[in-house]
Amino acid sequence: MLFQRLTRRAPHLVQSARRFSSTPYGRLRTTELFEGGLETLKVNPDRLWDTIHSTAQWTEPRSTPAEDIRTAGLARLTLSQEDKQARDWFVETTKSLGCKTHVDQIGNIFAIRPGLNNGDTPATFVGSHLDSQPSGGRFDGVLGVTAGIEMLRVLNDNWIETEGPVGVVNWTNEEGARYPVSMMGSGVWSGRIPLETAWNVKSVTPGPVTTVRQELERIGYMGSVPASYNGGIPIGAHFELHIEQGPKLEVSEQKVGVVQGVQAYKWFTLTFTGREAHAGTTDLEHRSDALHTAAHFMLEVRSIAKELNGLATVGLLTVSPGSVNTIPGQVKMSLDVRHPSDDGLSEMVKRVQNLCQWYATHVSSRCGPPGPTVTMEEDFTSSAVLFHEEAIKCVEESAASVLGDGHASLMQRMTSGAGHDSVCTNMHCPTAMIFIPSKDGVSHNPSEWSEKEECATGASVLLQSVLRMDKLRKDRGDFD
Amino acid sequence: MLFQRLTRRAPHLVQSARRFSSTPYGRLRTTELFEGGLETLKVNPDRLWDTIHSTAQWTEPRSTPAEDIRTAGLARLTLSQEDKQARDWFVETTKSLGCKTHVDQIGNIFAIRPGLNNGDTPATFVGSHLDSQPSGGRFDGVLGVTAGIEMLRVLNDNWIETEGPVGVVNWTNEEGARYPVSMMGSGVWSGRIPLETAWNVKSVTPGPVTTVRQELERIGYMGSVPASYNGGIPIGAHFELHIEQGPKLEVSEQKVGVVQGVQAYKWFTLTFTGREAHAGTTDLEHRSDALHTAAHFMLEVRSIAKELNGLATVGLLTVSPGSVNTIPGQVKMSLDVRHPSDDGLSEMVKRVQNLCQWYATHVSSRCGPPGPTVTMEEDFTSSAVLFHEEAIKCVEESAASVLGDGHASLMQRMTSGAGHDSVCTNMHCPTAMIFIPSKDGVSHNPSEWSEKEECATGASVLLQSVLRMDKLRKDRGDFD
Repeated sequence: MLFQRLTRRAPHLVQSARRFSSTPYGRLRTTELFEGGLETLKVNPDRLWDTIHSTAQWTEPRSTPAEDIRTAGLARLTLSQEDKQARDWFVETTKSLGCKTHVDQIGNIFAIRPGLNNGDTPATFVGSHLDSQPSGGRFDGVLGVTAGIEMLRVLNDNWIETEGPVGVVNWTNEEGARYPVSMMGSGVWSGRIPLETAWNVKSVTPGPVTTVRQELERIGYMGSVPASYNGGIPIGAHFELHIEQGPKLEVSEQKVGVVQGVQAYKWFTLTFTGREAHAGTTDLEHRSDALHTAAHFMLEVRSIAKELNGLATVGLLTVSPGSVNTIPGQVKMSLDVRHPSDDGLSEMVKRVQNLCQWYATHVSSRCGPPGPTVTMEEDFTSSAVLFHEEAIKCVEESAASVLGDGHASLMQRMTSGAGHDSVCTNMHCPTAMIFIPSKDGVSHNPSEWSEKEECATGASVLLQSVLRMDKLRKDRGDFD
Repeated sequence: MLFQRLTRRAPHLVQSARRFSSTPYGRLRTTELFEGGLETLKVNPDRLWDTIHSTAQWTEPRSTPAEDIRTAGLARLTLSQEDKQARDWFVETTKSLGCKTHVDQIGNIFAIRPGLNNGDTPATFVGSHLDSQPSGGRFDGVLGVTAGIEMLRVLNDNWIETEGPVGVVNWTNEEGARYPVSMMGSGVWSGRIPLETAWNVKSVTPGPVTTVRQELERIGYMGSVPASYNGGIPIGAHFELHIEQGPKLEVSEQKVGVVQGVQAYKWFTLTFTGREAHAGTTDLEHRSDALHTAAHFMLEVRSIAKELNGLATVGLLTVSPGSVNTIPGQVKMSLDVRHPSDDGLSEMVKRVQNLCQWYATHVSSRCGPPGPTVTMEEDFTSSAVLFHEEAIKCVEESAASVLGDGHASLMQRMTSGAGHDSVCTNMHCPTAMIFIPSKDGVSHNPSEWSEKEECATGASVLLQSVLRMDKLRKDRGDFD
C-alpha cells in the first residue's frame, strides 16, 4: 500500500527507490522508523563528500587533483555566473530526487519533497547557502545544502515517506560579500529586510556595479513567489548543518555541537584623540599618545570580555598621521563585542563605556594635558537568538543516536558566534542548528576544512533531526 | 685706528656702521668687548621678529594679518621656487651686510663677514636651514638663519670687528621632505653623504619627479665650490639656534636649552604573525591575535624605555586582513627607540629583542598554538652625538650672561631628540646648539610657535656664543 501511495503521489521516485528495495528499511513512514531502525539510518559519506566537492567544480580548475582539494577553496559570489551554475545544479538535482522547486522574489530556492500529508502544511526544511566569500572555503554553507540533498537521497534510497513534506532551501546571499547585507534571502523572507531594500543593494566586489535585482534578473532567478514567510513559502521547522568556524569542537575532541542559539553582538567605531608630537623630542611623561592609549584599551577590553565570558575583538585600526618618528595624534579602531545573552552584552558595553570615560579623567593627568580622549560610536547591533527548545531536542537526540556509545563526551550544547540563515527562520518556526568541527577553527579561507567522516556525522544528525521533527509534528497534529 | 682698519678692510660696512656710531659699544674688537659690555650686547627683538615673518612672505597670503600669523605656518620645500626666493633674499641681505657669499655644489650658501685676521682662517659660523616641511612652521630652521642675520646686523650696528671671520650658512635640504634624505647639505659637506648620491635623490612630494641636481640647476644654486669641509668652505666652529620641538623647556618654565648632544636612535620594522580567525566563533583562549600581542608589546616597550631613561614610539601600524569581525593575523609596526648614549640604546634594543623572543616562547602557550611570533628588522641607525665641550661652554656662559640674575633656574643642559645640521658640522669642528621653548612642544606643524622674546633671547645667546668662541680661538692662536 505504501508503494502504491508512493507511486501515486511521487511517480518519479519509484524508479530510483526500486533500485534500493533491498535496504533494511524497506518502504517505511517516519512513525514506523521510530519502532526500530532510526538509530542506524545514516548518510553515505562518500556520496556526500563527492557532492560537496563536485559543487565546487565551476570555480576550480577541473583537473584539481584530490590531494590539492584541501587548498583549492571556493569563490562563488552570490548571483554570479558560478552561483547560477550551482543554482541550476540544485534545481535539477532536487527535481530529479522528486522535489517540486519554487523560486521567490529574492532568489531563494525551495525544493519540497511531498510527505504523506501535504496540502497547506508547511514542510520541515533543511537550509543553508551555496554562495561563498571571495576567497572562501568549500564547506561554509555548501555543507548544509549538500547534506539536505543527501537527506533526500537517503529518504529515496530507503523508500521512506515522511508524515509531512520535507524540503531543502538554498538561501540567497548569506555571506553579504558581493552585496554587503548578510543573511539577505532569509532576512527578506523573515520580514527583517524589506524586499525593495534588498533589491537595491549595490555590489562592492570588483567588476561593474550592479544591484541585486539586476543580477537576479540576469541569471534568471527572479522568482514570482512572494519572498515572505507570510504569503510565500512557509516553513514548518528549519534545521541547518554548518561547520563551527571556530576551534571549540576540535579542541575538546568532540564531533557534534548542538547549537542552542546565536550570541548577541555589537560593532563600534572608537576614536582616540591625543596630540601629534616629535618622537625624538617629547618625553614619555609629556606625551598624549593616541596609539599607546589604544594599546592599553585593547588589553583592558580583553580583560572585561574574559571576566564576563564574552568576546571582544579589534579587527580594524588606523593610525594618523602615520610616520615613524611622529607620536600618533589619532587612532580609529573597530570593536566587535559579543555575548551569549543580551544582558551580558549590555554589561560588557557599559564596562567598555566606563573605561572610555576613565581615560578622559585619568590618563590625561598621567600623560600630561591634554590626555587622549576616547569616543565610541555604535555601528551595528544584533540581539541574542535562542533557538526553539523542541528543535534543539530533536538535534540532541539525533546526535546521541548517531554517535552511539559514549556520545555524551562527543557532543556539547553551544552558542554560535556567527549569524546564520537560521537566525531569520527562528523568528517564524522551530529552528535549531548542528555544528561539526572546523580544522584549526579556520573559515572564510581556502584552507577551511572538515573531514569526510565529520561531514557525514553531521549530515546523519541532520537527517535524523528532520525525521524526529516530522514525528513530533505528526504527534501534535500538524498534519491532520 | 679701529675705524681706519675697518674702512680699509671692509669699506662696505662703513656706511651702515656710521649710522650707529652713537651706540655704547663704539668701534670695538671682540677681545675689547670682554673688558666690559658683552653682557649687555643683545639682539633687537622686533627686527629679528620682522625678519622671521618677512621670510615667510613668499609662501603665505601677503595680506596675512598679524593676529593670524600663529596659524599661517610655512610651506617651503627645498629647491622649490619659494626656496629660491628665500635663498635670493639670504644672498642679497648678507651681501648688503658686508658678507662675501659662496655657493657650493650641493647648494649650501656660506656668507662670510671678514674679521681682523682672515687669510685661510675658517670662519666661526652660525648655521641652520630655510627649507621647511610641506606643512611646517615658521621657526624650524628659519630661526637659526635669521638669528645669524640678526647677529650680522648687531655686529655692524655696534661697529664690532671680530678677531677671525664669522659667517652664516644656509644648509640645503635639512628637512628631507621633498628629497627624502635629511641633513643633506651638511651631510655632503661632512663627507657622510657622497655628492653624487645626494644629486640623484628623487623628489617624493606631489608634482613632477625631479632630482636634486636638476632642481639645483633650475633655480641657479648649483655652485662651483666643492661641497666639502676639505677643499670647500671650511668651518672653524658652528653654532645653531633652534626651537626645542619638544615640551621640556616650556614645562620647566625655562628659557634656554644648552644642547650638549643628540641622542642615538634606531628605527625598526616589527612583524607580528598570528592567525586570522572569526571574531564571533573563536574563544579568547584559542586566539592567536597579532594585534592583541602588538598592544601588549607597545605597553611593555614603553616600560623598558621608561626604566632605561630612553624613548620608544610606535608611529606606524597596519593590521591585516583588516575586517571588523576577523581576528588580525598580521600586524606590521614601526618602532623608533632613542637614548642619549649608544650604550643605553644598545641595552634598550637588547631588552626589546628579548621581549620579542619571550612572545615566541610564552604567548604561544597562553593563546593556544600557534601563538603570535614577532620579528624585528633594523631599518636605520644613528649614533649618539656629543657636541664639543668648549663650544657648549661658550653657549652656557652666554646663556648665563643673557639671562642675568637667576639664570641657573632659567636654563638647562639637554640632549636633542632630533637630528640637526650641527650633527654633521660636529664631525669636523667645535659645535654646539641652543634651544628655545616650543609652545606645547609642537613642531612640523603650522601651529609651531615661540614668542618674540624667546626668539630674541636665543639669538642673543647665539650672538654672544660666537663672540666667546672668537675670543677663544684668538686666545689659542687660531688667527695668528
